[in-house]
Amino acid sequence: MADQIKATNIKWHHETVTQKDREANNGHEAAVLWFTGLSASGKSTIAQALQAVLFEHHCQTYVLDGDNIRHGLNKDLGFSPEDREENIRRIGEVAALFMDAGMIVNTAFISPYRADRDKARGLCGERFIEIYVHCPVEVCEERDPKGLYKKARAGTIPEFTGISAPYEAPENPELTLNAAEHSVEECVGQVVAYLQARGILKKL
Amino acid sequence: MADQIKATNIKWHHETVTQKDREANNGHEAAVLWFTGLSASGKSTIAQALQAVLFEHHCQTYVLDGDNIRHGLNKDLGFSPEDREENIRRIGEVAALFMDAGMIVNTAFISPYRADRDKARGLCGERFIEIYVHCPVEVCEERDPKGLYKKARAGTIPEFTGISAPYEAPENPELTLNAAEHSVEECVGQVVAYLQARGILKKL
Repeated sequence: MADQIKATNIKWHHETVTQKDREANNGHEAAVLWFTGLSASGKSTIAQALQAVLFEHHCQTYVLDGDNIRHGLNKDLGFSPEDREENIRRIGEVAALFMDAGMIVNTAFISPYRADRDKARGLCGERFIEIYVHCPVEVCEERDPKGLYKKARAGTIPEFTGISAPYEAPENPELTLNAAEHSVEECVGQVVAYLQARGILKKL
Repeated sequence: MADQIKATNIKWHHETVTQKDREANNGHEAAVLWFTGLSASGKSTIAQALQAVLFEHHCQTYVLDGDNIRHGLNKDLGFSPEDREENIRRIGEVAALFMDAGMIVNTAFISPYRADRDKARGLCGERFIEIYVHCPVEVCEERDPKGLYKKARAGTIPEFTGISAPYEAPENPELTLNAAEHSVEECVGQVVAYLQARGILKKL
Protein backbone atom coordinates (compact mmCIF):
# COMPACT_ATOMS: atom_id res chain seq x y z
CA MET A 1 0.00 0.00 0.00
CA ALA A 2 1.25 3.44 -0.94
CA ASP A 3 2.85 5.63 1.71
CA GLN A 4 2.65 9.39 1.80
CA ILE A 5 5.36 11.35 0.00
CA LYS A 6 6.80 14.71 1.05
CA ALA A 7 6.68 16.62 -2.23
CA THR A 8 8.85 19.37 -0.81
CA ASN A 9 11.86 17.18 -0.10
CA ILE A 10 12.25 14.62 -2.86
CA LYS A 11 15.08 12.09 -2.76
CA TRP A 12 15.38 8.60 -4.12
CA HIS A 13 17.74 5.70 -3.71
CA HIS A 14 17.02 3.48 -6.70
CA GLU A 15 18.59 4.51 -9.99
CA THR A 16 16.21 2.26 -11.86
CA VAL A 17 13.55 -0.01 -10.42
CA THR A 18 14.21 -3.61 -11.41
CA GLN A 19 11.86 -6.54 -11.77
CA LYS A 20 13.53 -8.02 -8.68
CA ASP A 21 12.77 -4.84 -6.67
CA ARG A 22 9.14 -5.07 -7.74
CA GLU A 23 8.88 -8.75 -6.85
CA ALA A 24 10.29 -8.09 -3.39
CA ASN A 25 7.69 -5.36 -2.90
CA ASN A 26 4.83 -7.49 -4.26
CA GLY A 27 5.65 -10.68 -2.36
CA HIS A 28 5.55 -12.92 -5.44
CA GLU A 29 7.49 -13.41 -8.64
CA ALA A 30 6.42 -12.05 -12.00
CA ALA A 31 5.36 -14.42 -14.78
CA VAL A 32 3.52 -14.71 -18.08
CA LEU A 33 0.82 -17.38 -18.03
CA TRP A 34 0.13 -17.99 -21.68
CA PHE A 35 -3.24 -19.73 -22.06
CA THR A 36 -3.71 -21.28 -25.50
CA GLY A 37 -6.57 -23.35 -26.89
CA LEU A 38 -9.57 -23.37 -29.18
CA SER A 39 -12.35 -20.80 -29.11
CA ALA A 40 -14.73 -21.68 -26.23
CA SER A 41 -12.21 -24.01 -24.61
CA GLY A 42 -12.34 -21.89 -21.45
CA LYS A 43 -9.09 -19.88 -21.69
CA SER A 44 -10.55 -16.51 -20.82
CA THR A 45 -12.85 -17.84 -18.09
CA ILE A 46 -9.97 -19.63 -16.38
CA ALA A 47 -7.60 -16.66 -16.83
CA GLN A 48 -10.19 -14.28 -15.31
CA ALA A 49 -10.99 -16.62 -12.41
CA LEU A 50 -7.28 -17.09 -11.74
CA GLN A 51 -6.83 -13.32 -11.75
CA ALA A 52 -9.65 -12.93 -9.21
CA VAL A 53 -8.07 -15.53 -6.90
CA LEU A 54 -4.62 -13.97 -7.19
CA PHE A 55 -6.00 -10.47 -6.65
CA GLU A 56 -7.91 -11.52 -3.56
CA HIS A 57 -4.59 -12.73 -2.19
CA HIS A 58 -3.00 -9.34 -2.95
CA CYS A 59 -0.95 -10.38 -5.95
CA GLN A 60 -0.36 -7.90 -8.77
CA THR A 61 -2.07 -9.54 -11.74
CA TYR A 62 -3.69 -8.65 -15.06
CA VAL A 63 -5.44 -10.37 -17.96
CA LEU A 64 -4.74 -9.63 -21.61
CA ASP A 65 -7.49 -11.04 -23.80
CA GLY A 66 -9.52 -10.26 -26.87
CA ASP A 67 -11.68 -7.77 -25.00
CA ASN A 68 -8.86 -5.38 -24.18
CA ILE A 69 -6.47 -6.10 -27.07
CA ARG A 70 -8.50 -6.73 -30.22
CA HIS A 71 -10.50 -3.50 -29.83
CA GLY A 72 -7.45 -1.47 -28.81
CA LEU A 73 -3.79 -2.11 -29.54
CA ASN A 74 -4.51 -4.65 -32.28
CA LYS A 75 -7.66 -3.23 -33.80
CA ASP A 76 -5.76 -2.71 -37.07
CA LEU A 77 -5.22 -6.47 -37.45
CA GLY A 78 -7.43 -9.14 -38.99
CA PHE A 79 -7.27 -12.94 -39.01
CA SER A 80 -4.97 -13.72 -41.93
CA PRO A 81 -1.88 -15.77 -41.00
CA GLU A 82 0.30 -12.61 -41.21
CA ASP A 83 -2.06 -10.61 -39.01
CA ARG A 84 -2.35 -13.47 -36.52
CA GLU A 85 1.44 -13.54 -36.33
CA GLU A 86 1.66 -9.78 -35.71
CA ASN A 87 -1.22 -10.05 -33.21
CA ILE A 88 0.69 -12.59 -31.14
CA ARG A 89 3.99 -10.72 -31.53
CA ARG A 90 2.52 -7.56 -30.02
CA ILE A 91 0.79 -9.49 -27.24
CA GLY A 92 4.08 -11.20 -26.41
CA GLU A 93 5.82 -7.82 -26.23
CA VAL A 94 3.11 -6.32 -24.01
CA ALA A 95 3.09 -9.40 -21.77
CA ALA A 96 6.87 -9.02 -21.38
CA LEU A 97 6.36 -5.39 -20.29
CA PHE A 98 3.77 -6.39 -17.68
CA MET A 99 6.11 -9.09 -16.40
CA ASP A 100 8.93 -6.54 -16.22
CA ALA A 101 6.53 -4.38 -14.19
CA GLY A 102 6.34 -7.21 -11.63
CA MET A 103 2.97 -8.64 -12.55
CA ILE A 104 1.58 -12.11 -13.12
CA VAL A 105 -0.03 -11.55 -16.49
CA ASN A 106 -2.50 -14.06 -17.91
CA THR A 107 -2.88 -13.96 -21.68
CA ALA A 108 -5.94 -15.65 -23.14
CA PHE A 109 -5.71 -15.93 -26.92
CA ILE A 110 -6.23 -18.87 -29.25
CA SER A 111 -2.64 -18.31 -30.51
CA PRO A 112 -2.91 -21.25 -32.91
CA TYR A 113 0.62 -21.29 -34.33
CA ARG A 114 3.42 -23.02 -32.43
CA ALA A 115 6.09 -20.78 -33.99
CA ASP A 116 4.32 -17.62 -32.80
CA ARG A 117 3.96 -18.94 -29.24
CA ASP A 118 7.61 -19.92 -29.26
CA LYS A 119 8.55 -16.38 -30.27
CA ALA A 120 6.51 -15.04 -27.34
CA ARG A 121 8.38 -17.49 -25.11
CA GLY A 122 11.64 -16.16 -26.49
CA LEU A 123 10.63 -12.60 -25.57
CA CYS A 124 9.48 -13.46 -22.06
CA GLY A 125 12.19 -15.89 -20.97
CA GLU A 126 12.06 -18.67 -18.41
CA ARG A 127 8.96 -17.47 -16.62
CA PHE A 128 6.85 -17.89 -19.72
CA ILE A 129 4.41 -20.60 -18.72
CA GLU A 130 2.48 -22.14 -21.57
CA ILE A 131 -0.85 -23.51 -20.43
CA TYR A 132 -2.70 -25.64 -22.90
CA VAL A 133 -6.43 -25.41 -22.27
CA HIS A 134 -7.38 -28.70 -23.82
CA CYS A 135 -10.97 -29.19 -24.87
CA PRO A 136 -12.10 -31.33 -27.84
CA VAL A 137 -13.45 -29.28 -30.73
CA GLU A 138 -16.80 -31.13 -30.46
CA VAL A 139 -17.20 -29.90 -26.89
CA CYS A 140 -16.23 -26.34 -27.86
CA GLU A 141 -18.69 -26.45 -30.73
CA GLU A 142 -21.41 -27.75 -28.43
CA ARG A 143 -20.77 -24.88 -25.98
CA ASP A 144 -20.46 -22.17 -28.68
CA PRO A 145 -21.39 -19.31 -26.31
CA LYS A 146 -21.06 -16.63 -28.98
CA GLY A 147 -22.44 -18.66 -31.89
CA LEU A 148 -19.07 -18.47 -33.66
CA TYR A 149 -18.81 -22.16 -34.55
CA LYS A 150 -22.24 -21.97 -36.09
CA LYS A 151 -21.16 -19.05 -38.24
CA ALA A 152 -17.90 -20.79 -39.10
CA ARG A 153 -19.78 -23.92 -40.24
CA ALA A 154 -22.07 -21.73 -42.32
CA GLY A 155 -19.02 -20.09 -43.87
CA THR A 156 -19.93 -16.64 -42.52
CA ILE A 157 -16.66 -16.49 -40.59
CA PRO A 158 -13.68 -17.54 -42.71
CA GLU A 159 -10.40 -18.88 -41.28
CA PHE A 160 -11.94 -20.03 -38.01
CA THR A 161 -9.52 -22.01 -35.86
CA GLY A 162 -10.44 -25.69 -35.51
CA ILE A 163 -12.93 -25.54 -38.40
CA SER A 164 -11.32 -23.81 -41.38
CA ALA A 165 -7.95 -22.75 -39.94
CA PRO A 166 -5.36 -24.89 -38.14
CA TYR A 167 -4.68 -25.16 -34.42
CA GLU A 168 -1.23 -26.46 -33.56
CA ALA A 169 -1.44 -27.94 -30.08
CA PRO A 170 1.55 -27.31 -27.76
CA GLU A 171 4.09 -30.15 -27.71
CA ASN A 172 5.69 -29.35 -24.37
CA PRO A 173 3.44 -26.98 -22.46
CA GLU A 174 4.34 -26.32 -18.83
CA LEU A 175 0.78 -27.29 -17.93
CA THR A 176 -2.20 -28.91 -19.66
CA LEU A 177 -5.68 -28.32 -18.28
CA ASN A 178 -8.42 -30.73 -19.19
CA ALA A 179 -11.16 -28.15 -19.51
CA ALA A 180 -13.81 -30.60 -20.74
CA GLU A 181 -13.66 -32.74 -17.60
CA HIS A 182 -12.48 -30.37 -14.87
CA SER A 183 -14.36 -27.40 -13.46
CA VAL A 184 -13.01 -23.86 -13.66
CA GLU A 185 -12.22 -24.06 -9.94
CA GLU A 186 -10.24 -27.26 -10.44
CA CYS A 187 -8.31 -25.78 -13.37
CA VAL A 188 -7.48 -22.65 -11.37
CA GLY A 189 -6.35 -24.84 -8.48
CA GLN A 190 -4.00 -26.70 -10.82
CA VAL A 191 -2.43 -23.45 -12.02
CA VAL A 192 -2.02 -22.17 -8.46
CA ALA A 193 -0.40 -25.45 -7.41
CA TYR A 194 1.97 -25.20 -10.37
CA LEU A 195 2.90 -21.60 -9.49
CA GLN A 196 3.57 -22.62 -5.91
CA ALA A 197 5.68 -25.60 -6.99
CA ARG A 198 7.73 -23.26 -9.18
CA GLY A 199 8.17 -20.79 -6.31
CA ILE A 200 6.37 -18.01 -8.19
CA LEU A 201 3.74 -17.92 -5.44
CA LYS A 202 4.40 -18.69 -1.81
CA LYS A 203 3.76 -22.26 -0.73
CA LEU A 204 1.63 -23.23 2.21
CA MET B 1 2.02 -8.12 -0.29
CA ALA B 2 0.80 -11.46 -1.54
CA ASP B 3 -0.88 -13.85 0.86
CA GLN B 4 -0.68 -17.62 0.65
CA ILE B 5 -3.32 -19.42 -1.39
CA LYS B 6 -4.81 -22.83 -0.66
CA ALA B 7 -4.59 -24.48 -4.06
CA THR B 8 -6.81 -27.32 -2.95
CA ASN B 9 -9.82 -25.20 -2.13
CA ILE B 10 -10.15 -22.44 -4.70
CA LYS B 11 -12.99 -19.91 -4.47
CA TRP B 12 -13.24 -16.32 -5.55
CA HIS B 13 -15.59 -13.45 -4.95
CA HIS B 14 -14.79 -11.01 -7.72
CA GLU B 15 -16.26 -11.73 -11.14
CA THR B 16 -13.84 -9.36 -12.75
CA VAL B 17 -11.23 -7.23 -11.06
CA THR B 18 -11.87 -3.56 -11.77
CA GLN B 19 -9.50 -0.61 -11.82
CA LYS B 20 -11.27 0.61 -8.67
CA ASP B 21 -10.56 -2.72 -6.92
CA ARG B 22 -6.90 -2.41 -7.85
CA GLU B 23 -6.68 1.19 -6.67
CA ALA B 24 -8.18 0.25 -3.31
CA ASN B 25 -5.59 -2.51 -2.97
CA ASN B 26 -2.69 -0.28 -4.06
CA GLY B 27 -3.56 2.74 -1.94
CA HIS B 28 -3.38 5.22 -4.82
CA GLU B 29 -5.24 5.97 -8.02
CA ALA B 30 -4.08 4.90 -11.45
CA ALA B 31 -2.94 7.47 -14.00
CA VAL B 32 -1.01 8.04 -17.21
CA LEU B 33 1.68 10.70 -16.87
CA TRP B 34 2.48 11.60 -20.43
CA PHE B 35 5.84 13.37 -20.58
CA THR B 36 6.41 15.19 -23.87
CA GLY B 37 9.31 17.38 -25.01
CA LEU B 38 12.39 17.58 -27.19
CA SER B 39 15.15 15.00 -27.26
CA ALA B 40 17.45 15.63 -24.25
CA SER B 41 14.87 17.83 -22.51
CA GLY B 42 14.93 15.47 -19.53
CA LYS B 43 11.70 13.48 -20.04
CA SER B 44 13.13 10.04 -19.39
CA THR B 45 15.35 11.14 -16.50
CA ILE B 46 12.41 12.79 -14.73
CA ALA B 47 10.08 9.87 -15.49
CA GLN B 48 12.61 7.37 -14.09
CA ALA B 49 13.33 9.46 -10.99
CA LEU B 50 9.61 9.88 -10.38
CA GLN B 51 9.16 6.12 -10.73
CA ALA B 52 11.91 5.52 -8.15
CA VAL B 53 10.27 7.93 -5.67
CA LEU B 54 6.82 6.40 -6.19
CA PHE B 55 8.19 2.86 -5.91
CA GLU B 56 10.01 3.65 -2.67
CA HIS B 57 6.65 4.76 -1.32
CA HIS B 58 5.10 1.45 -2.40
CA CYS B 59 3.13 2.72 -5.36
CA GLN B 60 2.62 0.50 -8.41
CA THR B 61 4.41 2.35 -11.16
CA TYR B 62 6.12 1.75 -14.49
CA VAL B 63 7.94 3.70 -17.20
CA LEU B 64 7.35 3.26 -20.90
CA ASP B 65 10.17 4.84 -22.91
CA GLY B 66 12.27 4.33 -25.99
CA ASP B 67 14.39 1.69 -24.27
CA ASN B 68 11.56 -0.76 -23.70
CA ILE B 69 9.25 0.20 -26.60
CA ARG B 70 11.35 1.09 -29.62
CA HIS B 71 13.36 -2.16 -29.43
CA GLY B 72 10.30 -4.27 -28.67
CA LEU B 73 6.65 -3.57 -29.45
CA ASN B 74 7.44 -0.82 -31.96
CA LYS B 75 10.63 -2.12 -33.50
CA ASP B 76 8.83 -2.37 -36.85
CA LEU B 77 8.29 1.41 -36.93
CA GLY B 78 10.56 4.22 -38.17
CA PHE B 79 10.37 7.99 -37.87
CA SER B 80 8.16 9.03 -40.78
CA PRO B 81 5.03 10.98 -39.80
CA GLU B 82 2.88 7.84 -40.33
CA ASP B 83 5.17 5.68 -38.24
CA ARG B 84 5.39 8.32 -35.51
CA GLU B 85 1.59 8.37 -35.42
CA GLU B 86 1.37 4.58 -35.11
CA ASN B 87 4.17 4.63 -32.52
CA ILE B 88 2.20 7.00 -30.30
CA ARG B 89 -1.09 5.18 -30.94
CA ARG B 90 0.35 1.89 -29.66
CA ILE B 91 2.00 3.59 -26.68
CA GLY B 92 -1.33 5.23 -25.80
CA GLU B 93 -3.07 1.83 -25.95
CA VAL B 94 -0.42 0.16 -23.79
CA ALA B 95 -0.47 3.04 -21.30
CA ALA B 96 -4.25 2.64 -21.05
CA LEU B 97 -3.77 -1.08 -20.25
CA PHE B 98 -1.26 -0.29 -17.50
CA MET B 99 -3.64 2.30 -16.07
CA ASP B 100 -6.46 -0.25 -16.18
CA ALA B 101 -4.11 -2.58 -14.26
CA GLY B 102 -4.00 0.03 -11.47
CA MET B 103 -0.60 1.54 -12.18
CA ILE B 104 0.78 5.04 -12.43
CA VAL B 105 2.50 4.75 -15.78
CA ASN B 106 5.00 7.37 -16.92
CA THR B 107 5.48 7.59 -20.68
CA ALA B 108 8.59 9.39 -21.91
CA PHE B 109 8.47 9.98 -25.65
CA ILE B 110 9.04 13.10 -27.72
CA SER B 111 5.50 12.64 -29.11
CA PRO B 112 5.85 15.78 -31.26
CA TYR B 113 2.34 15.95 -32.77
CA ARG B 114 -0.51 17.51 -30.83
CA ALA B 115 -3.13 15.41 -32.62
CA ASP B 116 -1.40 12.16 -31.65
CA ARG B 117 -1.12 13.18 -28.00
CA ASP B 118 -4.79 14.17 -28.04
CA LYS B 119 -5.68 10.71 -29.35
CA ALA B 120 -3.74 9.13 -26.49
CA ARG B 121 -5.67 11.40 -24.13
CA GLY B 122 -8.89 10.19 -25.70
CA LEU B 123 -7.90 6.56 -25.04
CA CYS B 124 -6.86 7.14 -21.44
CA GLY B 125 -9.60 9.45 -20.22
CA GLU B 126 -9.53 12.02 -17.46
CA ARG B 127 -6.50 10.66 -15.67
CA PHE B 128 -4.29 11.34 -18.68
CA ILE B 129 -1.89 13.96 -17.38
CA GLU B 130 0.11 15.72 -20.05
CA ILE B 131 3.41 16.99 -18.70
CA TYR B 132 5.33 19.33 -20.95
CA VAL B 133 9.04 19.05 -20.23
CA HIS B 134 10.02 22.46 -21.48
CA CYS B 135 13.64 23.04 -22.38
CA PRO B 136 14.86 25.40 -25.14
CA VAL B 137 16.30 23.60 -28.15
CA GLU B 138 19.62 25.41 -27.63
CA VAL B 139 19.94 23.89 -24.17
CA CYS B 140 18.99 20.43 -25.45
CA GLU B 141 21.52 20.77 -28.24
CA GLU B 142 24.18 21.87 -25.76
CA ARG B 143 23.47 18.81 -23.57
CA ASP B 144 23.25 16.35 -26.49
CA PRO B 145 24.12 13.29 -24.34
CA LYS B 146 23.85 10.83 -27.23
CA GLY B 147 25.32 13.11 -29.92
CA LEU B 148 22.00 13.06 -31.80
CA TYR B 149 21.75 16.83 -32.39
CA LYS B 150 25.25 16.77 -33.85
CA LYS B 151 24.21 14.01 -36.25
CA ALA B 152 20.98 15.82 -37.06
CA ARG B 153 22.88 19.04 -37.90
CA ALA B 154 25.24 17.01 -40.08
CA GLY B 155 22.23 15.51 -41.84
CA THR B 156 23.12 11.96 -40.75
CA ILE B 157 19.79 11.67 -38.92
CA PRO B 158 16.88 12.90 -41.05
CA GLU B 159 13.57 14.11 -39.59
CA PHE B 160 14.99 14.99 -36.19
CA THR B 161 12.51 16.79 -33.95
CA GLY B 162 13.43 20.42 -33.28
CA ILE B 163 16.00 20.50 -36.11
CA SER B 164 14.48 19.03 -39.25
CA ALA B 165 11.06 17.86 -38.00
CA PRO B 166 8.44 19.85 -36.10
CA TYR B 167 7.63 19.80 -32.39
CA GLU B 168 4.16 21.01 -31.53
CA ALA B 169 4.27 22.21 -27.93
CA PRO B 170 1.22 21.40 -25.77
CA GLU B 171 -1.32 24.21 -25.57
CA ASN B 172 -3.03 23.17 -22.35
CA PRO B 173 -0.83 20.64 -20.57
CA GLU B 174 -1.82 19.68 -17.04
CA LEU B 175 1.71 20.57 -15.96
CA THR B 176 4.74 22.31 -17.46
CA LEU B 177 8.17 21.61 -16.04
CA ASN B 178 10.92 24.10 -16.68
CA ALA B 179 13.68 21.54 -17.12
CA ALA B 180 16.35 24.07 -18.07
CA GLU B 181 16.13 25.95 -14.77
CA HIS B 182 14.86 23.38 -12.28
CA SER B 183 16.71 20.29 -11.07
CA VAL B 184 15.37 16.78 -11.59
CA GLU B 185 14.49 16.68 -7.88
CA GLU B 186 12.50 19.91 -8.19
CA CYS B 187 10.66 18.68 -11.28
CA VAL B 188 9.78 15.38 -9.57
CA GLY B 189 8.57 17.33 -6.54
CA GLN B 190 6.29 19.39 -8.77
CA VAL B 191 4.76 16.24 -10.28
CA VAL B 192 4.24 14.67 -6.85
CA ALA B 193 2.59 17.86 -5.58
CA TYR B 194 0.30 17.85 -8.62
CA LEU B 195 -0.64 14.20 -8.06
CA GLN B 196 -1.42 14.92 -4.43
CA ALA B 197 -3.49 17.99 -5.32
CA ARG B 198 -5.47 15.83 -7.76
CA GLY B 199 -5.99 13.14 -5.12
CA ILE B 200 -4.14 10.52 -7.17
CA LEU B 201 -1.60 10.19 -4.37
CA LYS B 202 -2.36 10.67 -0.70
CA LYS B 203 -1.76 14.13 0.70
CA LEU B 204 0.30 14.85 3.78
